[in-house]
Amino acid sequence: MKSHFKNNLVCQLLSIDFPIFQAGMVWCSPWRLAHAVSEFGALGTIGAGSMYPDVLDEHLSKISQATSKPFAVNLPLLYPQIDDHLELILKHKVPIVITSAGNPKTYTSFFKKHKIKVIHVVSSLKFALKAQEAGVDAIVAEGFEAGGHNGKDETTTLCLLETLFGKIQIPVIAAGGIGSGRAMLSAMVLGAQAVQIGSLFVASEESSAHMNFKEKVLQANEGDTRLTLKEITPVRLLKNAFYNKVQKAYEECATQDQLKELLGKGRAKKGMFLGDLTEGELEIGQIASVINEVKPAKDILQMLLKEYFSSLDKIKST
Amino acid sequence: MKSHFKNNLVCQLLSIDFPIFQAGMVWCSPWRLAHAVSEFGALGTIGAGSMYPDVLDEHLSKISQATSKPFAVNLPLLYPQIDDHLELILKHKVPIVITSAGNPKTYTSFFKKHKIKVIHVVSSLKFALKAQEAGVDAIVAEGFEAGGHNGKDETTTLCLLETLFGKIQIPVIAAGGIGSGRAMLSAMVLGAQAVQIGSLFVASEESSAHMNFKEKVLQANEGDTRLTLKEITPVRLLKNAFYNKVQKAYEECATQDQLKELLGKGRAKKGMFLGDLTEGELEIGQIASVINEVKPAKDILQMLLKEYFSSLDKIKST
Repeated sequence: MKSHFKNNLVCQLLSIDFPIFQAGMVWCSPWRLAHAVSEFGALGTIGAGSMYPDVLDEHLSKISQATSKPFAVNLPLLYPQIDDHLELILKHKVPIVITSAGNPKTYTSFFKKHKIKVIHVVSSLKFALKAQEAGVDAIVAEGFEAGGHNGKDETTTLCLLETLFGKIQIPVIAAGGIGSGRAMLSAMVLGAQAVQIGSLFVASEESSAHMNFKEKVLQANEGDTRLTLKEITPVRLLKNAFYNKVQKAYEECATQDQLKELLGKGRAKKGMFLGDLTEGELEIGQIASVINEVKPAKDILQMLLKEYFSSLDKIKST
Repeated sequence: MKSHFKNNLVCQLLSIDFPIFQAGMVWCSPWRLAHAVSEFGALGTIGAGSMYPDVLDEHLSKISQATSKPFAVNLPLLYPQIDDHLELILKHKVPIVITSAGNPKTYTSFFKKHKIKVIHVVSSLKFALKAQEAGVDAIVAEGFEAGGHNGKDETTTLCLLETLFGKIQIPVIAAGGIGSGRAMLSAMVLGAQAVQIGSLFVASEESSAHMNFKEKVLQANEGDTRLTLKEITPVRLLKNAFYNKVQKAYEECATQDQLKELLGKGRAKKGMFLGDLTEGELEIGQIASVINEVKPAKDILQMLLKEYFSSLDKIKST
């Protein structure tokens, strides 16, 4: 299986065996998950966006000791203590950084100077071109169906990949709605070199999502997530009591300040990490509706590859 | 090329050569367009939703005289004069009807009794199962990125196909965001047997869209369409002065009645058919952003097949 991807540009760039990224999701992506994914030969990612520097330090120590395989850190560029995070990335010799939520120009040269590969998350051609110009090594193209924070244009993964096709010279990693090996192959047909997968790994055994949240993901049906809070920062949430409050606020024509007050602080931690399904924010992708089981990360990866090769065989036989 | 699809279930079901449907779009799908597509060997569709019975009668007369190949009529089941339309469908021996916007149980047995193939448009697994139970021959699965009227769940084409995979026994035709042969192949990797394409055919020479509207489609960039009016009937529109008025109404917390009054009647005709880019509704898919040229339908179909086979070759060589 590994040899199938030996010419894959993302596998070559990052020295990984399989062109699959586990997304670095807030509250769900500890070193344990990243480790399991990287050991398998895909790209594991620690989600630094929900970690204080001392917590990130601990996770980086543990993963560095546990594996010699490449792994990544997901770093939202608007993180308040970003300088501390940057120091830790250097201290632990993190080989790959996936940046998001900020200007890729600000830190790309810093990473390149330290021989760190930089991948930036975008949701439009416009920002893909900016990231390419800033010198990043690759981009994650994330569509409307993705969980968590999301682009303002609402461009779906399919339309985003079409829009990027032939216009971007660096490798593209497709994200949003990828829930099977079929979807992985279909993204590659559309020009992606790899895929980034979040929701499936929220429901992995190694994820640090609270068991209540994992159970809620398994129960999710179609139509149960919605992109909301577009006036603040768009975010895709599982519908719950908090989401209903937000909807009610919209119906009552809440101002942006009222929405901010309603959101308050710490709701993602409350929902995803502490398991408060009523008052917490539950960030997950649309594809949650097809997830029915919590599995070890290894089993998820094996399933993805099995489906990928079986759909490839099917298409080859047509 | 034809022989490649000889085992395709949709091609066999409808006696067509290529598994491509031209969508039956209001104000844009006259007999001339359907004729060009059907003559090529794909499925041309007359959009009856914007035609009075006498107009539909004329279009059906013309296409019946001009071709012996199969063609379809798209019939919104909530159309006020539906009985007249049904009579015309029988009179002109229309071989295929694509129904939407209504309960598939109501008319499916009527069509089947008259040996007419019935295909129903859905935007969720829930309605796909209902349509299958009602006895339709196939379903069109239409995602969030599609133009015109759209599902309430906002499920994207990628996620919808994943949700249907393995759960539906009749053939699935993917719609929404299909703008290239790559996208066509990627939908088939995800389990679709065929694709339905709208936006590309709005910008065809044979489409009855007003030249102003076609020009506006060519100019569209990413982020220029938005799904709106969800409280009435969700519809994806190109942003223009009318769209901005709707947005302003939302900001001012308009009631559903106020939105209905703002919408008024005849806005789709005004925009798409009469070319009023200011006050009209301009219904188009997200994929409009990649359309840069008005072409004959035949050239669009040739391009789709060329891209399809070239991406198939590329995938086969991996």
